[in-house]
Amino acid sequence: MSRNSDTRSTNITWHAGHVTREDRERILGQRGVTLWLTGLSGSGKSTIAVGVERELVQRGRVAYVLDGDNIRHGLNKNLGFSPEDRTENIRRIGEVAKLFTDAGVVVLTSFISPYRADRDAVRALLAPGDFVEVWVAASVEACESRDVKGLYAKARAGKIPEFTGISAPYEEPVSPELVLDTERQTQAESIAQVVAYLEAKGYLAARAGKLAGG
Amino acid sequence: MSRNSDTRSTNITWHAGHVTREDRERILGQRGVTLWLTGLSGSGKSTIAVGVERELVQRGRVAYVLDGDNIRHGLNKNLGFSPEDRTENIRRIGEVAKLFTDAGVVVLTSFISPYRADRDAVRALLAPGDFVEVWVAASVEACESRDVKGLYAKARAGKIPEFTGISAPYEEPVSPELVLDTERQTQAESIAQVVAYLEAKGYLAARAGKLAGG
Repeated sequence: MSRNSDTRSTNITWHAGHVTREDRERILGQRGVTLWLTGLSGSGKSTIAVGVERELVQRGRVAYVLDGDNIRHGLNKNLGFSPEDRTENIRRIGEVAKLFTDAGVVVLTSFISPYRADRDAVRALLAPGDFVEVWVAASVEACESRDVKGLYAKARAGKIPEFTGISAPYEEPVSPELVLDTERQTQAESIAQVVAYLEAKGYLAARAGKLAGG
Repeated sequence: MSRNSDTRSTNITWHAGHVTREDRERILGQRGVTLWLTGLSGSGKSTIAVGVERELVQRGRVAYVLDGDNIRHGLNKNLGFSPEDRTENIRRIGEVAKLFTDAGVVVLTSFISPYRADRDAVRALLAPGDFVEVWVAASVEACESRDVKGLYAKARAGKIPEFTGISAPYEEPVSPELVLDTERQTQAESIAQVVAYLEAKGYLAARAGKLAGG
């Protein structure tokens, strides 16, 4: 990637005229938010993300999941698994989540995102209240005992280098907004916990305030 | 960017369970689509994009504009203006537009996007009917005579290298779905033309068909 500071970000001006986020949220009857699910492989992130999406969409809400399926094969297909590429992977996902949030969508991201610094960088991108860190908590032992995709077995056999929880670290969230204890509750309970949080915090209702002009 | 083919895109499996696009569109009452506005600086792209967004949101539709404001300062802030960075810029925007389209949103992109190959690459990313190329057509002379941002004057003075239409080419669309003649019609007329196209082609109504399971 070229990083010529003399040509970078020139020719750019800010302009007014966009629909304001408040107008958009008032009309949609919901607030945009990024629900950032983090946890080990096999902890249940994707199932929970898709379950929350389904529940919200069935209620007529606008919700969308970003996960390996639609990101790694698309936007981030030119990234590998080196440390800098992992960081860039999470950064781009964070920027896309920010766009969806600005559009008034409840966006759920489902990525292991093992590094605290990467998650905190995404948190810093977003306004307070727009980023909800959801720790999908399960021990390595629990995830390995399920091993739905057989990845832990491959990792133990040395066939997958730098596998989170086995040969690479998972840095647990320090102050996540939500902790889903997927060892002790069902997936349906975890899905309900997330939806209840959104309701309690007012994300499924429009913000107070009047429509701005025009 | 690392491109180690041996580590790239491993550990990825596809899984079912997402809300289907058809379910989502049925519930939203609209079809996701990318309206790709292309044209010279000063042709009116941003004003038209924002005008269409406002018109749709006021009708309760979900619409969103991707433009230099929210892309160049965010997702693509690590890209410059070299040929390969310009191509990567458009590629990433195309991938993000694809995600919004999949989410059922009417997404409008407002970028000069002067190269046919870059635009055609985005078209190829999306399914038929999901990509609508909108040529915001105005001559260099017309755009230069307006020169709202003073960029043409700077480009003529040699202060902006490779300025599209002056010192870099603009490759006109060959078969755009829509041509907006912004030299001969008002911005309001161009906005109305885009909305009328969306209505006529059925994008503002749910697809026919039943809800899939669950």
